[in-house]
Amino acid sequence: MVSKRNEAPITVACIQMEPIFGETARNVATSVSMIEQAAAKGANLLVLPELCNTGYVFSSRDEAFTLAENIPDGHSSRAWIACAARLKIYLVAGITERDGESLYNSAVIIGPEGYIGRYRKVHLWGDEALFFEPGNLGFPVFKTRIGTIGCQICYDCWFPESFRMAALQGAEIVCVPTNWVPIPGQDASREAMANILVMAASHSNSIFIAAANRVGIEREQPFIGQSIITSYTGWPVAGPASEANAEIVVATVNLADAKRHRNWNDFNQVLKDRRPEVYNFSTLNNASIG
Amino acid sequence: MVSKRNEAPITVACIQMEPIFGETARNVATSVSMIEQAAAKGANLLVLPELCNTGYVFSSRDEAFTLAENIPDGHSSRAWIACAARLKIYLVAGITERDGESLYNSAVIIGPEGYIGRYRKVHLWGDEALFFEPGNLGFPVFKTRIGTIGCQICYDCWFPESFRMAALQGAEIVCVPTNWVPIPGQDASREAMANILVMAASHSNSIFIAAANRVGIEREQPFIGQSIITSYTGWPVAGPASEANAEIVVATVNLADAKRHRNWNDFNQVLKDRRPEVYNFSTLNNASIG
Repeated sequence: MVSKRNEAPITVACIQMEPIFGETARNVATSVSMIEQAAAKGANLLVLPELCNTGYVFSSRDEAFTLAENIPDGHSSRAWIACAARLKIYLVAGITERDGESLYNSAVIIGPEGYIGRYRKVHLWGDEALFFEPGNLGFPVFKTRIGTIGCQICYDCWFPESFRMAALQGAEIVCVPTNWVPIPGQDASREAMANILVMAASHSNSIFIAAANRVGIEREQPFIGQSIITSYTGWPVAGPASEANAEIVVATVNLADAKRHRNWNDFNQVLKDRRPEVYNFSTLNNASIG
Repeated sequence: MVSKRNEAPITVACIQMEPIFGETARNVATSVSMIEQAAAKGANLLVLPELCNTGYVFSSRDEAFTLAENIPDGHSSRAWIACAARLKIYLVAGITERDGESLYNSAVIIGPEGYIGRYRKVHLWGDEALFFEPGNLGFPVFKTRIGTIGCQICYDCWFPESFRMAALQGAEIVCVPTNWVPIPGQDASREAMANILVMAASHSNSIFIAAANRVGIEREQPFIGQSIITSYTGWPVAGPASEANAEIVVATVNLADAKRHRNWNDFNQVLKDRRPEVYNFSTLNNASIG
């Protein structure tokens, strides 16, 4: 039942930075500088915040369109691809994507050999819906030399469906570029409810999660930091980081453990114990939910 | 957008008790005594632990069969129905159910006017699979005078699908009879990961949850208490209770708030923001999950 194979551990880093709105080249340079610091600590899988090349609070679709870039041919992607090749790292970076006339809140996934793929945020938050198209690529997972990587962005974490989709496709770690903000009902004396969602998703899918949030106040919108890396048990292995400071959160983990320790007893493996025939969501309508 | 209607608050109680294995009449008497204590504090929706009439650790199917009862005609159900009528309360009680030759890990839902319905645990844990049939009633919700009540039992909480099913059918509170045990990866210095799951489910569905666990050690199996009541924000409004003591956890809440405060901004209501067309679980297989 328990494999004797030992995968090499990897070192995961969340880059909690403060993008400056609209200053794309400067933001990418900041990210590269922090990536270099994390790589010097041994990090080989790094996560950057949501929309970290442009900032988050667009005032108009036109403004977002002007700042957006193609993946992987735009300036930001190319800079990160060069950085990943030089440092021999994997990188998941939140980026404002333009594809023809459409804009997406995306993440670009990059490895030492170059561009791997992209994820487009499925669940849009707030007035993002005025600028971005909802993600149209589903929940892809990316097979790499260091393990299978899934991706979510920010509000996607409120949908356990997202993590399930990644885990059922074999993700051992889900990387989450995010721009978490204070939400209604948040108790300021406690940690972010977002991190409770991340812990629950890690545990109930037996996966690692690395969530990199930004900090700072942008056009009156505060962000809450608290970047975190959780293990398949659900508990944090690094972080949460501070609420307001740029910093790097690092943890060395063995991604193989996510699958190795998934049989909790002689009978149960949570992903196999699902009973899809009982989850008849398709027969429900929205009339009851207020 | 925001209703001005004010529902009356209700008082929810989790009865954290210690059933004695096999002593059904005594266990029901203990539960009634604690129900009376909670009702004296104003409780009108009470939750009892999983299998609280019989205890949990069966040594054989025959033993379970001998202890099991029909719903609602068995002794335990009838005692609880009489109690609910006398005290004018709603009650969700974990019970070992026999239906013909089949056994179920069930909850009976009772109101002041009598029997309302039953829930049968969908996801069985450990060697329960040797004794019980998996629940065959889906995830029913129960419309009552005090609000719409869903039900889960113990390991069901590891499946966010369960809470979604209840919430999408209009549940304002999900009652959870449970027998949580220490699990692999549990950090003894922290609260139960089960409660993290409950908090996440409350928040990401905007529902109240009341989880009543048992305490004590039965046939060498320890149980971990920590009964909890969470609000639609995700945060506890009562508990977690102690790990080892019989006690009652009580919170007065307004169930209407679960739906009233579900619009988090001009664009987002988490249950309506689901994108079922992207959750193509049916196209996945289990080959990738280890």
